[in-house]
Amino acid sequence: MKTIEPKSVTPIAETFPPPSISSWNHHHVLDLDDFTREEIELTLEITDAMSEILTREVKKVPTLRGKTIINLFYEPSTRTRSSFDLAAKNLSADTISLDASRSSIAKGESLIDSLRTLRALGADVVVMRHSQSGAPYLAAQHVNTSIINAGDGWHAHPSQALLDLYTIRRHLGKLADLKVVLIGDIKHSRVAHSNIWGMTTMGAKVTLCAPQTLLPYGLADFTNQCHIPNISIEPRIEVAIKEADVVMPLRLQLERQQSGLLPTLREYIHLYQLNEKRLSLAKPNALVMHPGPVNEGIEISLEVAHGAQSVIEEQVTNGIAIRMALFYLVAGGKSNET
Amino acid sequence: MKTIEPKSVTPIAETFPPPSISSWNHHHVLDLDDFTREEIELTLEITDAMSEILTREVKKVPTLRGKTIINLFYEPSTRTRSSFDLAAKNLSADTISLDASRSSIAKGESLIDSLRTLRALGADVVVMRHSQSGAPYLAAQHVNTSIINAGDGWHAHPSQALLDLYTIRRHLGKLADLKVVLIGDIKHSRVAHSNIWGMTTMGAKVTLCAPQTLLPYGLADFTNQCHIPNISIEPRIEVAIKEADVVMPLRLQLERQQSGLLPTLREYIHLYQLNEKRLSLAKPNALVMHPGPVNEGIEISLEVAHGAQSVIEEQVTNGIAIRMALFYLVAGGKSNET
Amino acid sequence: MKTIEPKSVTPIAETFPPPSISSWNHHHVLDLDDFTREEIELTLEITDAMSEILTREVKKVPTLRGKTIINLFYEPSTRTRSSFDLAAKNLSADTISLDASRSSIAKGESLIDSLRTLRALGADVVVMRHSQSGAPYLAAQHVNTSIINAGDGWHAHPSQALLDLYTIRRHLGKLADLKVVLIGDIKHSRVAHSNIWGMTTMGAKVTLCAPQTLLPYGLADFTNQCHIPNISIEPRIEVAIKEADVVMPLRLQLERQQSGLLPTLREYIHLYQLNEKRLSLAKPNALVMHPGPVNEGIEISLEVAHGAQSVIEEQVTNGIAIRMALFYLVAGGKSNET
Repeated sequence: MKTIEPKSVTPIAETFPPPSISSWNHHHVLDLDDFTREEIELTLEITDAMSEILTREVKKVPTLRGKTIINLFYEPSTRTRSSFDLAAKNLSADTISLDASRSSIAKGESLIDSLRTLRALGADVVVMRHSQSGAPYLAAQHVNTSIINAGDGWHAHPSQALLDLYTIRRHLGKLADLKVVLIGDIKHSRVAHSNIWGMTTMGAKVTLCAPQTLLPYGLADFTNQCHIPNISIEPRIEVAIKEADVVMPLRLQLERQQSGLLPTLREYIHLYQLNEKRLSLAKPNALVMHPGPVNEGIEISLEVAHGAQSVIEEQVTNGIAIRMALFYLVAGGKSNET
Repeated sequence: MKTIEPKSVTPIAETFPPPSISSWNHHHVLDLDDFTREEIELTLEITDAMSEILTREVKKVPTLRGKTIINLFYEPSTRTRSSFDLAAKNLSADTISLDASRSSIAKGESLIDSLRTLRALGADVVVMRHSQSGAPYLAAQHVNTSIINAGDGWHAHPSQALLDLYTIRRHLGKLADLKVVLIGDIKHSRVAHSNIWGMTTMGAKVTLCAPQTLLPYGLADFTNQCHIPNISIEPRIEVAIKEADVVMPLRLQLERQQSGLLPTLREYIHLYQLNEKRLSLAKPNALVMHPGPVNEGIEISLEVAHGAQSVIEEQVTNGIAIRMALFYLVAGGKSNET
Repeated sequence: MKTIEPKSVTPIAETFPPPSISSWNHHHVLDLDDFTREEIELTLEITDAMSEILTREVKKVPTLRGKTIINLFYEPSTRTRSSFDLAAKNLSADTISLDASRSSIAKGESLIDSLRTLRALGADVVVMRHSQSGAPYLAAQHVNTSIINAGDGWHAHPSQALLDLYTIRRHLGKLADLKVVLIGDIKHSRVAHSNIWGMTTMGAKVTLCAPQTLLPYGLADFTNQCHIPNISIEPRIEVAIKEADVVMPLRLQLERQQSGLLPTLREYIHLYQLNEKRLSLAKPNALVMHPGPVNEGIEISLEVAHGAQSVIEEQVTNGIAIRMALFYLVAGGKSNET
């Protein structure tokens, strides 16, 4: 596993923070659609510095000491919540995690009132996951605490897309002109949506490979021509994957089948599973990525998930570094200004 | 919101801790009925110092480093538990939160045995919420770890009352001779009960405004004459509120209606909701307070809850400072003596 | 309570870490069956140093600063999880607790994949409890993060056995040649199993006192002769307890009765409850121990549980020190080598 060595890593900033932080302009991180190429570059550059911290014997810096970061999760999540929590702890912030699905915070209280309470409790950053698309936008309109969207409905999951960009750049040295193939349930995947914004902003070309029922409405006409630059649609996996630099099958929510969007699971596997034979059609050093958790044997074969081209576990590690960078940018950078 | 500026704030103690800490005599904080005026003054004075810490860029001091504070909650709570947790973290204490309603700590184990275990685990302070009135008293009789009552049944919630006293003093400069009106379900409100002790000890005059069914048994005779000094009963809200310095509607537990203590919700709103017209009968700069979470449109109108006189969000912030002060007094001050 | 004073405590190491740490050879702590006498001695010696830290005003050292310790509990536990959590915090490690029985980590993800994710998130040590005997062994075969078994099915609970050894040695000055009597449900007790390994390795003699239905299969033949050195079986409690140095009744899982392994609870109490009369048959200064939580009035009488010979609460405190020592050995010691 992970036998592909990073080809090119931006040298770790000698001076920390990097001078370019003045170009950062986001109080919130809601999606990548309003990130410029420079802002994404800056984020990845700071993530390099954070990655270096993670390799230290003592992987902790005092950057956000005395700051309070609150994880407010209206949907259960262990993986993403733990990642944000550990990232905050690595920066010496204080954290609390509120499981709003089980807690009393939601009872008789609107989302806005809950957030006002968190601000009054001293939250510098609220990391928010919500089953409703757009909920973090509503929150950001009413409360001035920095909000990081950790996934809202089918809409966006910007920190996951940023860690994907970072992982690709670490291994392939760049993002521009790469061919990235997303396979499977694009329609319901907030990871795919944020990745499409981020990848195209960075100059990559994205191919979406999915049955019509799992593509977003209105993205393509009936001839499968996508009207958005740098995005193409190709339902045949063998064609889509050809000469790809990055192949990313998405997690198949098994309940989609019951809703009639899929034929049988067997047919889905037959048509869309990323296996070794199909992967061989991509470039020889193509990266295999997955947002996790993996349904082994469904959207990806066991051999490919744990194969030499897989960087799935490294994505998890890079997720910590990306979240450290985002916390630094919204809470640490801010503090330098005031 | 919060346009009322604090009129008078006790200057932050230059020397910390203040010399008067020797007058503090509480190993536990169970209710305010055994607090002297001097002890409440001391608590508020230390809270001023804690409030100042909350305004710092790095809102963290090492005061309770190496101390262990355990939140033991037999009733679910997000708001109060988070407040105690963040207060402890701001003082650099280590904290763990035990949700006894969901955990295994309660199984086949008495309250006393659970507390003995927490003491043996090294707890310096146990913050305890319990649905049974008196439970923290039982605990304090058997275990010598400091206990802070975070709400026991209908009985008491001293840290909430202290934050109310603190908020009033910050804005109005004093407590003595103020007219404070509590409106609504006095009977089941542990916040109201602790506030009555604290307010009257500090020399304020408290008016209780509620239907007979929501007043504590035996407080008043059938002519609504209260036999306790500085407490009066006035069921007509327009009369009660007249010339008030502080108006505090209480959260209406909606399930009270089913138990027959209320007529209809519509009638309750008609008779007891704090709205702008009624608020105009109080003094012009009267404070609007609420222990939260607010049922907007029931006990308080949306306009008043978010209006210029409302200090509801500031109460939340002051709650952090009060709890820091209480931790300091029971765990930090103690350590200076030994 | 706890009127028995420790007779002999190994002097706290002047130099920390002790020079003998090079003899430690465990990347994981799965059970005591592969611990040598020297390794157990080393663990207890380091625990002495940790116990000293627990008596300090500031009971916190920076030993594991920047290390990440993850509690992964597939079975609910408050007591053991809190003990590991506080032990980690005392060493300044960062901790997160994942309740896998309630979380999403287990959904569609194998144990191995979950552990790979935790490793990728930066876990230096995973403390793992699982209802399946052997689960931590499976994990240790596939993932190179240090694993501490916090209880697996009926199999093992090594940190609990170590704290028992430590508590005995603190009070009686040695372990060799002591007579230790375990009473009750030996069969289903992971505590008993790990204790048998640890006690016999240290030269103690263990007597098992239980009905046939609550003894492990195949341990003894039908004449109750045990074929393992230093272990004997004696179902009559009055005989078993005679001249004992340590008496440890085990928690009776009340559901065992329904499964037909027990006659009535009344008969169990009649035959096996440790009461004052029975305890008087042991040596005069015999220790009464219990892994907790205690069913008072079932396996042990209230008087004995809280009597002068009981060290049950001290076991809880020593558990913190043992877990600090284990974290130090697997995560701190390791770091010195690399």
